[in-house]
Amino acid sequence: MFNPSDHPHRRYNPLQGDWVLVSPHRAKRPWQGQQEAVDRSARPSHDPTCYLCPGNTRVNGEKNPDYTGTYVFENDFAALMPDTPEAAEGADPLFQTMSARGTSRVICFSPDHAKSLPQLSLPALEGVVDTWCAQAAELGAKYRWVQVFENKGAVMGCSNPHPHGQIWATSYVPNLPAAEDRQQKAYHAEQGRRLLLDVAEREIAAVERVVVQTEHWVAIVPYWAAWPFETLVLPRFAVRRLEELQPAQRADLAVLLKRLTTRYDNLFQTSFPYSMGWHGAPYGIPDEDAEGWQLHAHFYPPLLRSASVRKFMVGFEMLAEAQRDLTPEQAAERLRAQSEVHYLDTES
Amino acid sequence: MFNPSDHPHRRYNPLQGDWVLVSPHRAKRPWQGQQEAVDRSARPSHDPTCYLCPGNTRVNGEKNPDYTGTYVFENDFAALMPDTPEAAEGADPLFQTMSARGTSRVICFSPDHAKSLPQLSLPALEGVVDTWCAQAAELGAKYRWVQVFENKGAVMGCSNPHPHGQIWATSYVPNLPAAEDRQQKAYHAEQGRRLLLDVAEREIAAVERVVVQTEHWVAIVPYWAAWPFETLVLPRFAVRRLEELQPAQRADLAVLLKRLTTRYDNLFQTSFPYSMGWHGAPYGIPDEDAEGWQLHAHFYPPLLRSASVRKFMVGFEMLAEAQRDLTPEQAAERLRAQSEVHYLDTES
Ligand SMILES: O=P(O)(O)O[C@H]1O[C@H](CO)[C@@H](O)[C@H](O)[C@H]1O
Ligand SMILES: O=P(O)(O)O[C@H]1O[C@H](CO)[C@@H](O)[C@H](O)[C@H]1O
Repeated sequence: MFNPSDHPHRRYNPLQGDWVLVSPHRAKRPWQGQQEAVDRSARPSHDPTCYLCPGNTRVNGEKNPDYTGTYVFENDFAALMPDTPEAAEGADPLFQTMSARGTSRVICFSPDHAKSLPQLSLPALEGVVDTWCAQAAELGAKYRWVQVFENKGAVMGCSNPHPHGQIWATSYVPNLPAAEDRQQKAYHAEQGRRLLLDVAEREIAAVERVVVQTEHWVAIVPYWAAWPFETLVLPRFAVRRLEELQPAQRADLAVLLKRLTTRYDNLFQTSFPYSMGWHGAPYGIPDEDAEGWQLHAHFYPPLLRSASVRKFMVGFEMLAEAQRDLTPEQAAERLRAQSEVHYLDTES
Repeated sequence: MFNPSDHPHRRYNPLQGDWVLVSPHRAKRPWQGQQEAVDRSARPSHDPTCYLCPGNTRVNGEKNPDYTGTYVFENDFAALMPDTPEAAEGADPLFQTMSARGTSRVICFSPDHAKSLPQLSLPALEGVVDTWCAQAAELGAKYRWVQVFENKGAVMGCSNPHPHGQIWATSYVPNLPAAEDRQQKAYHAEQGRRLLLDVAEREIAAVERVVVQTEHWVAIVPYWAAWPFETLVLPRFAVRRLEELQPAQRADLAVLLKRLTTRYDNLFQTSFPYSMGWHGAPYGIPDEDAEGWQLHAHFYPPLLRSASVRKFMVGFEMLAEAQRDLTPEQAAERLRAQSEVHYLDTES
C-alpha cells in the first residue's frame, strides 16, 4: 500500500501552481560530492575592513553613519535603476523586451558585525521588522513590487557576513509573485477564503508540520516544501502587506523569528545559510484584486545532512522539477526537536 | 533612449512563459563572496577508487563490466522506483499527492576516467549520442517523460568526476517540460509553425547570439538566457524526439557538442561545470498534441566571471525572478571568441 514516508510521490504547491517530487528513501544514499566550507570562526563586533560596519567607508567613497539600530542605503551596484527609459514594446512573439525600473537597497540589521538574526535581542529584531515595514510602505508608493529579502551565508552568494538583507523594488510584478497572485486569486474566487489563512489553520490543527507557533504567527514546513528544511511563516490573522502589521503583531513576529532562526542554527550547530523573503499583495492594484492575498515569508535553506553537505537543485531539478530527499514531516520533526536556546549561548 | 546593453530590462522566455531580468551595468560590481575551488589536477585514465570505472565494484557489490564505449546501469540510489503503489487521489485543494513511478539510470560516457565530453573523439561522442537515443526509445515505451541529463563539476552537485550523465524517466510530465509543452502547443496553434524551428531560423539570420553552427544544428545563447553562458542547442530540421534522429544528424550533433563544450572549457581555462539535458515531446500522447514540439538541449552553466566566480541564483532570484549581469549578446560574443582547440590539447 502507498506510504508517503517510503514511496516516491509528487506533492502539489497550491501557492505556485506546480509540483515537487518527494523521494524519501533517497536520504540513505552516501554522499561523495562537494563539501561546503563551515565557518565557525568567531567574528569581531566591528571589522574595520567591512563596508557595512558603522563609520566605515564604502566602495563609492561614502561613509556609513555611526548607526545604532538598522541602517538602510541604496545599493552601490543596483540591479535596477529608477530612471531607465521606456523600451518600445514590439509585437514579435519570440523576442520581447520590457524596460524595468526599480531600486535596490541594502539594510544592515545591526551595527554588530558578529550578530545574525537569532543572536539579536527582541527589541533589535523588532527594529528589523519595523524597518522592513517602513521600506515596504515607502517603496510600495512608487513601485508595483517590493521584494524584501536576506541572503545569508557564503553558500547563498552572500558576499559579506555582516548581518544584512536587501530590498529590490520593481515597476512590474516578477514571475514568482505573479504566480502566487494568480493562485491566491483563483482559490479565493472558488472558496471565498484566503488560501494561506486556510493553510495556517489546517496546519495548526494537524500539528505535524508546525515548527514554531506564537500568538499571532506560525512557521511550518509546507506540505509542498522543495528545499530540505524550507519553512513558510504565516500570520494567523488576515493581512495583505508588511506595513499593515500592528505593533503587537510586529513584536510577536520578532519572537517567532528569533525562535525559528535559533532552531535553524542549532540543527547543524552552524550559522544556518538561507535565502528568505517576504511576499505581500502587489501595489497599485484595486482592493478587490488583492482579496485573496495573505502576507507571508519563505525561508529557503540549502543544507541537507550537515553543516557542510547541501542539497543541489541541479540536473533533473533545473530541467524537469524540484526533488527532495526527506519528507516535509520528517524535516519539521527534526526542527521541532531543536532547543530554542542558541548553541553559542549554551557554550559560554 | 533605451539601450539594452546599458539599461535594466526584462526579456520574455516564450518556451517557458516567464521573464528574466537583465542588468547589464551590474557586471561591473566587485566580487567579495565565495570562490569555487578550481580543480586543475590531472586525472588518471583509471581510478581504482572510482565506482564508475570499468572493472570496479559499486557500493551495492555489483562489478562494472570492462566496458569500452558507454555503459548504462540502474542508479543504486534512484529517486524513482518502477513499482510505487498508486496513491489515492484526494479532492483537497491544499494537500494533493500523486504517486510517482519511474526509473533512474547512470550513463558512463567513456571508460576513460579523465575525459569529459570535449575531450572525447568524434566516434566516442557519437556513441554517447546513440546511447541517449536508445535510452529515450526504450524508456519512452514505458514512461511519459524521459529526462536525459548531465551534471558536470562539483559546483553542480556532481559527486564523481568520471564522465557520466543520468536518465530519469517518470510516469508523469514534470513542471518545466509541461510548461514547454503548453507554450509550444499555443505557438503552433497561433502561428502554424514550431516555435523552436522559428527561433533557429531567426537566430541564424541574426548571427549575434549564435555560438556554433553546423550543417544540421545550431547552438545559441537564447535571447532570454538566465544563466550567464547558458546555451540552447537546436536542430535546423523538424524533429520531436532523440530517437528520431538520423545517422547523419547524430554524427553532426557529435561535431556540434565537441565544438560547443571545447569553447566552454576554453572560456575560463577550466573543465566548465554545467547541468545540461534534452527535452523532446512527451510520450504516450496523440501525434497532433506533439505537433508544436521540437527536440532541443539546454546547457545551464553557473560560472560568471572566472573559473572560481559563479552566479548565485538566490534571494531575488528564488523569491521573485531570475536576473543576469551581462547580456546574452555579450555572452555569445565571448563564447564565439574562443578557439575550438581544447586548451589542454594546445598545452601538450
Ligand atoms: O544523483 P547525484 O548525481 O548523486 O545527485 C545530483 O543530481 C541529482 C539529479 O539532478 C540531484 O537531485 C542531486 O541533488 C544532485 O546532488
Ligand atoms: O547583491 P549581492 O548580495 O552582492 O548578490 C547576491 O544577491 C543577489 C540578489 O539575490 C543575486 O542576484 C546575486 O547573484 C547574489 O550574488
